[in-house]
Amino acid sequence: MPLDRRAALQRLGTAFALPAAFAAPGLIGRATAEPAAPAPAQAPGFYRFKIGGFVVTTVNDGYFDFPVDKLITNASLAEVQAILQDSFLSPTIYHNPFTLTLVETPRGIVMFDCGTGGQMGPHTGKLPQNLRAAGIDPSRITTIVFSHFHTDHITGLLSADGEAVFPQAELIVPEPEWKFWSDRGNETRSPPFQRSNFANVAKRFGPYQNRVRQVAQDTEVVPGIHSFAAPGHTPGHTLYRISDGGEQMIFIADTTHRPELFVRHPELHAIIDFDPDQAEATRRKVLDMLATDRIRISGYHYPFPANGYILRDGASYRFVPANWTSEI
Amino acid sequence: MPLDRRAALQRLGTAFALPAAFAAPGLIGRATAEPAAPAPAQAPGFYRFKIGGFVVTTVNDGYFDFPVDKLITNASLAEVQAILQDSFLSPTIYHNPFTLTLVETPRGIVMFDCGTGGQMGPHTGKLPQNLRAAGIDPSRITTIVFSHFHTDHITGLLSADGEAVFPQAELIVPEPEWKFWSDRGNETRSPPFQRSNFANVAKRFGPYQNRVRQVAQDTEVVPGIHSFAAPGHTPGHTLYRISDGGEQMIFIADTTHRPELFVRHPELHAIIDFDPDQAEATRRKVLDMLATDRIRISGYHYPFPANGYILRDGASYRFVPANWTSEI
Repeated sequence: MPLDRRAALQRLGTAFALPAAFAAPGLIGRATAEPAAPAPAQAPGFYRFKIGGFVVTTVNDGYFDFPVDKLITNASLAEVQAILQDSFLSPTIYHNPFTLTLVETPRGIVMFDCGTGGQMGPHTGKLPQNLRAAGIDPSRITTIVFSHFHTDHITGLLSADGEAVFPQAELIVPEPEWKFWSDRGNETRSPPFQRSNFANVAKRFGPYQNRVRQVAQDTEVVPGIHSFAAPGHTPGHTLYRISDGGEQMIFIADTTHRPELFVRHPELHAIIDFDPDQAEATRRKVLDMLATDRIRISGYHYPFPANGYILRDGASYRFVPANWTSEI
Repeated sequence: MPLDRRAALQRLGTAFALPAAFAAPGLIGRATAEPAAPAPAQAPGFYRFKIGGFVVTTVNDGYFDFPVDKLITNASLAEVQAILQDSFLSPTIYHNPFTLTLVETPRGIVMFDCGTGGQMGPHTGKLPQNLRAAGIDPSRITTIVFSHFHTDHITGLLSADGEAVFPQAELIVPEPEWKFWSDRGNETRSPPFQRSNFANVAKRFGPYQNRVRQVAQDTEVVPGIHSFAAPGHTPGHTLYRISDGGEQMIFIADTTHRPELFVRHPELHAIIDFDPDQAEATRRKVLDMLATDRIRISGYHYPFPANGYILRDGASYRFVPANWTSEI
């Protein structure tokens, strides 16, 4: 313990010694006659900001936990855990949140990807309640734009009993992503971890066949929203620039998973990347651009409210959450 | 522009050139016949987590903007603006948010400080609506514990027309803070910026005289909550440790204002500090302790949800927001 710290603790006195009283719950005292307390609930998971005249809403769909030791393929577990501990995250459980980006435009609401449908474990499926809290009727979602076809991004197309959840929406899909996962001939050429996507893509898009529009990369897919190719995480992984009134942001989808790992350390390869080398190359290019141009982003697996900026820091980067404001 | 960045942009194509179409709003298209959209509102500003069996709720009370150029007394405006820009904050307006910390205990709810009462400009006074959203009836707030007596921490004791807002609550005040601001003889010995506090303290606590309990520093003020002296920001500025079931956190009040400035740069002196040298010495001691012991904190002027950790980074520190979770 450094001397100045010891002095500081002496100066602060014994305030930080846990008192024995805490071992004796009876000393806490009995509840008095206050009004009955409702069971404390978490705040709804939505947040709004403006890009020009567009109102952007990020909406949380819950989370999925999995063991850290299965995530990174090119660093030791100890190295990964040291990074997580610097971010005050669990060193054993990778907490993977899902937050969707929606854009309210004069033509209706555009939603990017469509969440888990509550079909990826007990902590998923918060999207409907959070949309309700945000005052967004799902029938107002006229367009769903897909970044890629991993399970957590497309499963919400169908309910657990197979009904289309957004039957009125047009689905915009990147042409290379659609072509890759629609060709079952690619299945044996895919990493084992990725093979279940073929069946899931067929199943989830099945009831929507007449509502799917394939779009080329690097085009305006709806007014104010441009696609650009960012392959590696999947073969047709695609980012979207959202722009209005001279302002812009980018939905970066899974260019990086949690920023504490993959923005601080773009060199990390994740088991969830289809082609880790290509994913890293794309990640580095995109991070360089975002840091240089100071473009606001939203990310699907960023900590809620899942929007902010990329700051260059030495040879690497940091994610800086956008300032939270109580007014839009 | 570095070569690799130029190559990256060429690789990404022209997706980032703002298209001419955006200058012509008519091209955005007309609204179609979706259901009528409610006016988009910001999410309620509350967030919950547990410390042992206690449920902690941070609740936002809005914000107050003031010019950056009046804030820092020992660095140039250019230096301050460079720091703000690294955090993607305005270089001209200091956005000063107010977020209160409440602890739901078996004995009732303890609230730390009491906000602006909506009497510090049009962007303040969000506390009542956010308490309501959190399911907290103000009559359940049995105890208000004060860190110090600056305007934004005590004004909410009274409504704009002078009524006591929390007539049922016990007010716990640090003895040195109470003694200092109750003695009008100290007024001329105070920096000019601080002198209006004397009248405001007399006014705000007036209707509560029989409900005020002065407490010594470094004591357990209610079960599970310990005070300790952290002077400088004001003469009796006080922090509180909240502990239950072997877990703890610290409400650090104004030990640092916005972390982007004062955690990254503890050496900065702010016009709002009563004794800037003492404030800096306290800040350094507390930051050192928080970083070493990895203690969760909440801060009154931290970006909502205003809780997280202090990470040592070279000779300085960083604030790391706690991981947001959709379940408590």
